[in-house]
Amino acid sequence: MSRTVLTPRAEDFPRWYQDLITKAELADNGPVRGTMVIRPWGYGIWERMQAGMDSRIKAAGAANAYFPLFIPQSYLQREAEHVEGFSPELAVVTHAGGKDLEEPIVVRPTSETMVGEYLSKWINSHRDLPLLLNQWANVVRWELRPRLFLRTSEFLWQEGHTAHADEQDAAAYARRILHEVYADFMRTELAIPVVPGRKTRHERFAGAVNTMTLEAMMGDGKALQMGTSHEFGQNFARAFDITYTDAEQHSRLAWTTSWGSSTRMLGGLIMAHGDDAGLRLPPSLAPIQVVVSVVRDDDEGRPVSVARGLVEELITGGIRAELDDRVDIPFGRRAVDHELKGIPVRLEIGPRDLAEDRVTLVRRISSGKQPHPIDGVLPAITTALAEDQHLLYSEAETRREERTADVTGLDEAREAARTGWARIPWRSVGDRGEAELGESGITVRCLVLPDGAVPDTDDPAVEPDLIAVVGRSY
Amino acid sequence: MSRTVLTPRAEDFPRWYQDLITKAELADNGPVRGTMVIRPWGYGIWERMQAGMDSRIKAAGAANAYFPLFIPQSYLQREAEHVEGFSPELAVVTHAGGKDLEEPIVVRPTSETMVGEYLSKWINSHRDLPLLLNQWANVVRWELRPRLFLRTSEFLWQEGHTAHADEQDAAAYARRILHEVYADFMRTELAIPVVPGRKTRHERFAGAVNTMTLEAMMGDGKALQMGTSHEFGQNFARAFDITYTDAEQHSRLAWTTSWGSSTRMLGGLIMAHGDDAGLRLPPSLAPIQVVVSVVRDDDEGRPVSVARGLVEELITGGIRAELDDRVDIPFGRRAVDHELKGIPVRLEIGPRDLAEDRVTLVRRISSGKQPHPIDGVLPAITTALAEDQHLLYSEAETRREERTADVTGLDEAREAARTGWARIPWRSVGDRGEAELGESGITVRCLVLPDGAVPDTDDPAVEPDLIAVVGRSY
Ligand SMILES: [Zn+2]
Ligand SMILES: [Zn+2]
Repeated sequence: MSRTVLTPRAEDFPRWYQDLITKAELADNGPVRGTMVIRPWGYGIWERMQAGMDSRIKAAGAANAYFPLFIPQSYLQREAEHVEGFSPELAVVTHAGGKDLEEPIVVRPTSETMVGEYLSKWINSHRDLPLLLNQWANVVRWELRPRLFLRTSEFLWQEGHTAHADEQDAAAYARRILHEVYADFMRTELAIPVVPGRKTRHERFAGAVNTMTLEAMMGDGKALQMGTSHEFGQNFARAFDITYTDAEQHSRLAWTTSWGSSTRMLGGLIMAHGDDAGLRLPPSLAPIQVVVSVVRDDDEGRPVSVARGLVEELITGGIRAELDDRVDIPFGRRAVDHELKGIPVRLEIGPRDLAEDRVTLVRRISSGKQPHPIDGVLPAITTALAEDQHLLYSEAETRREERTADVTGLDEAREAARTGWARIPWRSVGDRGEAELGESGITVRCLVLPDGAVPDTDDPAVEPDLIAVVGRSY
Repeated sequence: MSRTVLTPRAEDFPRWYQDLITKAELADNGPVRGTMVIRPWGYGIWERMQAGMDSRIKAAGAANAYFPLFIPQSYLQREAEHVEGFSPELAVVTHAGGKDLEEPIVVRPTSETMVGEYLSKWINSHRDLPLLLNQWANVVRWELRPRLFLRTSEFLWQEGHTAHADEQDAAAYARRILHEVYADFMRTELAIPVVPGRKTRHERFAGAVNTMTLEAMMGDGKALQMGTSHEFGQNFARAFDITYTDAEQHSRLAWTTSWGSSTRMLGGLIMAHGDDAGLRLPPSLAPIQVVVSVVRDDDEGRPVSVARGLVEELITGGIRAELDDRVDIPFGRRAVDHELKGIPVRLEIGPRDLAEDRVTLVRRISSGKQPHPIDGVLPAITTALAEDQHLLYSEAETRREERTADVTGLDEAREAARTGWARIPWRSVGDRGEAELGESGITVRCLVLPDGAVPDTDDPAVEPDLIAVVGRSY
């Protein structure tokens, strides 16, 4: 039934993705090229992502703040690699308040420069360090080939910015964010088995001395970068004069980091878990976990009143439940819509079910459909939601494992990248191999140690052991 | 002691305001004229404001969404009064992605036009109505005389946008937001006795047929507009072709509303409750409700360990508590800082207190300072926080009442506006009186009915009964 609603993934994955976003009412294109409108269903998922990330960020000791959207063009120019990296993507305000501006203003593509200026003002003594900030904001990077959630000219994100007294503390914090905030959130709540690793020198963020990433495999075997954590060494501290007085009254340069994750995670969620019937939402992020859907009502209105009672019971039990009593819309059409939107559990209820004091429990993720006595439906649902959260994760993990090949040469890597990823010794790739793979549209997603740990920055001792994870990507 | 920290209010209220914002570390000026950096303490308060507003907005049935920052210039021009109202304040992007743009892009000053375009796409049938949306976003209105939180070139806000099948439903919803969301939040959580009322024709939002407002009296007797709720009639529906098919298959124009509140509320909070020692935060919005402050430690570290235990106990009891064990910073300086920041309760603990198994409980709002046995400190604090939340409200209410004069003529109104507000029959003012008062910098803040109710739009029947609340304003 639902197969007719979306283009099947096997036929055209990018079109399936676009269809799903439209039909599940997640987002629309904005009028200005590359911008996007996030519709309530998409935004409701984003709100739950924000909540899950925000509590972890706060647990890691960072406080939220807000820095201006508008950056003087001169700020960008203070860090040479940074301005070079962002210049082609900038949107520039030249006119404001009815006048042409003397100095053009850049709409922030990211806030390292702006935050750098204030870290410099706020930090005086070693007592002020570490200074751990985060902001939730919109940023603008002009996109020539936009795609909803994945590459948009404006997107929503969080960007963390921290300053530390020494290199070790900065390095430890950038890794703490990578593991305790990003990897934990993505695995536990997004149900995506991300691979943390280090980016090659070539793939580093503009101005960083080390960029760490979390890579996820999508349903078509391609990779998506889900978040990044950067060490800047003293580059920004030097450019913005972020200095502090240490315990012996010596003036020293600070060490800074930044780290970000965005609405791009919504794209990752869709492509990691969606199927030909639509989205499949991890129960922990679903704005509605259970829809109680009345098949049809009877003369006394009993199905609707029982359904309403069930919704109350579920809400009291801590479940996000909603009633669908739109019996004037064909039941099949509503079911297709609930599947498209990825609501984890559907409770169907009609006169025939009621005659037997039962409901039909339909699970979106494990695809089961079973009658269940009305009594005791709450514990059954609680169990189903927990099981299906894990099931989504293990399905994604199985795919990632099955579609990742351990190889030794570039040809094999190219072959593996047709359907997934390759793991190949970095010493067999190197800068030259990386460029060669690039010609086939394949990139080194990250470097990891044989045991899966994230290698330290440019440590020559571990260089011979590094494994490169390579593949095509979004 | 703390009197030396800030310029006293009686001496120079605007300077006191600016001093307080800087010294309480609430915000800083941004590098681009009129922009602002919201520091963690200010942002923490804003986050709690957002939470309080957001839950009320959702309870009123609106769902959050996100619309683009960038609006094609042509959109603004579709509603004549709207573009006229906003043109002088616009920031315009003329260059992006390394090229000059064919059509200039406006950075949103508000989103009626953008949302109008999508309401038109999303609304087909009467079943789609009412459509109730809200977004949390940044907006830009170029300010020539910026003041932190009150008038900034960029500010953070929520803007609600709704479409309805008929005028009555739109009118009722705009009033529901005014009362159940805004007035309730501002009274209950901000502890500010706002006056809801209708704006005069002259003070209406650009494009609205009715603007309702919530006016608050600040510590210096001036008024601050804390939020607004607008009815647009069918103006935007006509400009953006927002039509629906009714039950009889006739095509009809929808009726729309919008409503907004912003970081300006932070300015209102400061000016309504602050005193010469700093900010006084309503306990329900304070990021830290209780600071447990160690006066000095002893050799065994007992004060710090007891203080830490108290913090745990308070947190378990549902109170936002934090430890201040920075005993190397003079205790007096820390106390001044806690007062500046407006933390409602301070628990002071030192070796001498411990010898008597007590702490010193200092209340920021009611200014009490009393010893209290360590046992049973949690219920004492819970009571203090609830009492002081109410005390803040009633202090502000008393001031508003004492400084509001019932008058009959413009001269008396001008006199009253030197220290507060005047209530004057609208029939004694009218368009001409409004212009005359304007010459003295006095505006009609709102129109109310004698019983305090908000009058209906331009209802000639109630016109003779209307009371104008007039005063100076921010
Ligand atoms: Zn030193
Ligand atoms: Zn009709």
